[in-house]
Amino acid sequence: ARKHRIAVIPGDGIGKETTPEGLRVLDAAARRFGFELDLTHYDWSCETYAQTGKMMPDDGMDRLRDSDSIFLGAVGWPGVPDHVSLWGLLIPIRRQFDQYVNLRPCKLLPGSKSPLANRGPEDIDFYVVRENTEGEYSSIGGRMFPGTDREFVSQQTVMTRIGCDRVIKYAFELAMTRKRKKVTSATKSNGITFTMPYWDERFAEMAKHYPQVTTDQFHIDILCAHFVQHPDWFDVVVGSNLFGDILSDLGPAVAGSIGIAASANINPEKTFPSMFEPVHGSAPDIAGKWIANPIGQIWSGAMMLEHLGEKAAADCIVATIEKLLAEGGPRTRDMGGQAGTVDVGRAIAEAV
Amino acid sequence: ARKHRIAVIPGDGIGKETTPEGLRVLDAAARRFGFELDLTHYDWSCETYAQTGKMMPDDGMDRLRDSDSIFLGAVGWPGVPDHVSLWGLLIPIRRQFDQYVNLRPCKLLPGSKSPLANRGPEDIDFYVVRENTEGEYSSIGGRMFPGTDREFVSQQTVMTRIGCDRVIKYAFELAMTRKRKKVTSATKSNGITFTMPYWDERFAEMAKHYPQVTTDQFHIDILCAHFVQHPDWFDVVVGSNLFGDILSDLGPAVAGSIGIAASANINPEKTFPSMFEPVHGSAPDIAGKWIANPIGQIWSGAMMLEHLGEKAAADCIVATIEKLLAEGGPRTRDMGGQAGTVDVGRAIAEAV
Ligand SMILES: CC(C)[C@H](C(=O)O)[C@@H](O)C(=O)O
Ligand SMILES: CC(C)[C@H](C(=O)O)[C@@H](O)C(=O)O
Repeated sequence: ARKHRIAVIPGDGIGKETTPEGLRVLDAAARRFGFELDLTHYDWSCETYAQTGKMMPDDGMDRLRDSDSIFLGAVGWPGVPDHVSLWGLLIPIRRQFDQYVNLRPCKLLPGSKSPLANRGPEDIDFYVVRENTEGEYSSIGGRMFPGTDREFVSQQTVMTRIGCDRVIKYAFELAMTRKRKKVTSATKSNGITFTMPYWDERFAEMAKHYPQVTTDQFHIDILCAHFVQHPDWFDVVVGSNLFGDILSDLGPAVAGSIGIAASANINPEKTFPSMFEPVHGSAPDIAGKWIANPIGQIWSGAMMLEHLGEKAAADCIVATIEKLLAEGGPRTRDMGGQAGTVDVGRAIAEAV
Repeated sequence: ARKHRIAVIPGDGIGKETTPEGLRVLDAAARRFGFELDLTHYDWSCETYAQTGKMMPDDGMDRLRDSDSIFLGAVGWPGVPDHVSLWGLLIPIRRQFDQYVNLRPCKLLPGSKSPLANRGPEDIDFYVVRENTEGEYSSIGGRMFPGTDREFVSQQTVMTRIGCDRVIKYAFELAMTRKRKKVTSATKSNGITFTMPYWDERFAEMAKHYPQVTTDQFHIDILCAHFVQHPDWFDVVVGSNLFGDILSDLGPAVAGSIGIAASANINPEKTFPSMFEPVHGSAPDIAGKWIANPIGQIWSGAMMLEHLGEKAAADCIVATIEKLLAEGGPRTRDMGGQAGTVDVGRAIAEAV
């Protein structure tokens, strides 16, 4: 049987509760579609940080390197600063494994509710393709004249030709697989006049190679407004690290699915493992109560299977989630139900 | 009588149509509330650029300097690059006149419609306070290795202590005048790790001086989501140049008022003139048809009067706009009516 090596990092908070449900569904899919999952569990988290002083051991990246994919829950906990929890685990994995595409579906699922008036599943169904390794999240910056009136900080946004081209190309290729074949670029070249005009230039250049794809571009301010006013305009939206981050929270928010949104951190060439994680965080407020919604985790598992070449299994999981929601299967509190994390996971696993 | 010197720059496109209506209402308010407006008109625009090669004459800034306020329509026209139209007029005025606060009300007006389900005027009524002179809109950046595979661009975000403190202070002072007394800070210190943590630091520092004000902060991605899901959470929201730009389009979008939103570019010390302009642009698609909605311009005029110390007149104009909308007065097409730009301007002027 086909075998996929998966590194599992539940992480913190509800990540520890949703990951097992993700695995439960993956396991059901493996049995039904005839592949094997070879799992290695890593307890790396803010908890192990408290014990060891490190988010992951020194050879952490090496241990992950041989897996086919990484299945992540959530990282971060109150009291542990972001530069430790995020920059000690999440960001290095994205960056060192060159997971340069952060792919996030924005979809109004049947049975879930958008905060927008009069919008149904046919109105909201697009992807945000986010650059995931450079841009505004840079490592160059500092502070001068600390403690004085002329104190200032500065940080460079860096966009490389290689970095822009490869993620923009991914967006066009994705659009080619879709019915509408449209790519929208997020820019702000009227205000941020060194980096963003370059992004526009590379976008225009790439567009020439895809005459079948319709394109447009909006400044990020009005683009955010359009997400609310006209979510039906979008098919594939591509943006820099920061703009993609913003749009891939706003998109699920208008679709009413921010609590269940999935994301994939992809190294398309498969030189390194890709990583799959729900968009939600570790949610300290509800952690330990086993009421967290596992759908984002399970959906991320489906994205992982698609990346691993198990498209039939991936489609089956997504269809099962949609069916369960549409037919009023068990729901967690955030979706107006009473079910626990495990109930929802079991229901989806069984239906698969 | 009190006399205010106003520099009027209608600019391009619908700016030429909405500005006269703004002036019509200002004029009515002047007569009713007993002050005088001393207007100087400037035709600076992309049209004059086509004739003279300049957006404004060399002594343009000097000519404006002696006015009490600048009343602007909209700048920009297809074919004229942004670095000419915006960076030749709008941005230099904001920056050289140290208009470091960009203030934008986000308000669901009675009778106008939010795209959100089940939201009324009591749910959406807050201000975005945007830093308007530094941050992400910086003048430091460039390109290396052009035309090669290692080509890259970079641009610095710069935040100064003076720049952060003064705009954050403005937000706290504004909150002190309001019932809820709450300030929300927009950040992204988990991803942008040199500049944004400094913003957080200055925000926390300023908060100490305002124990009566409640504060919270969100990363910009989830904050955008909260604008859609919980617009009722916000009272005064303060952000950097870029984050403020995004939020002050998204806020009016969720309030259903993006076509009529107003903005003030304020130099609170009154060392330099402040500038008042609608949020909408020159709208080439409807320019020349006299169907543009003048309410954003008129509302900006009210903000100008408030800045000039004519609070009663300002309140009267805003109340008149609200009344007209609530009672089904003449409306332009964007609000579902048939009226022209002038009809709406006249109706408001008469009611004032
Ligand atoms: C035109 C553009 C440079 C401007 C900005 O980003 O400041 C506009 O979007 C605004 O918000 O006034
Ligand atoms: C936690 C944070 C650094 C991260 C990001 O901004 O990339 C998160 O918001 C995300 O979108 O995955």
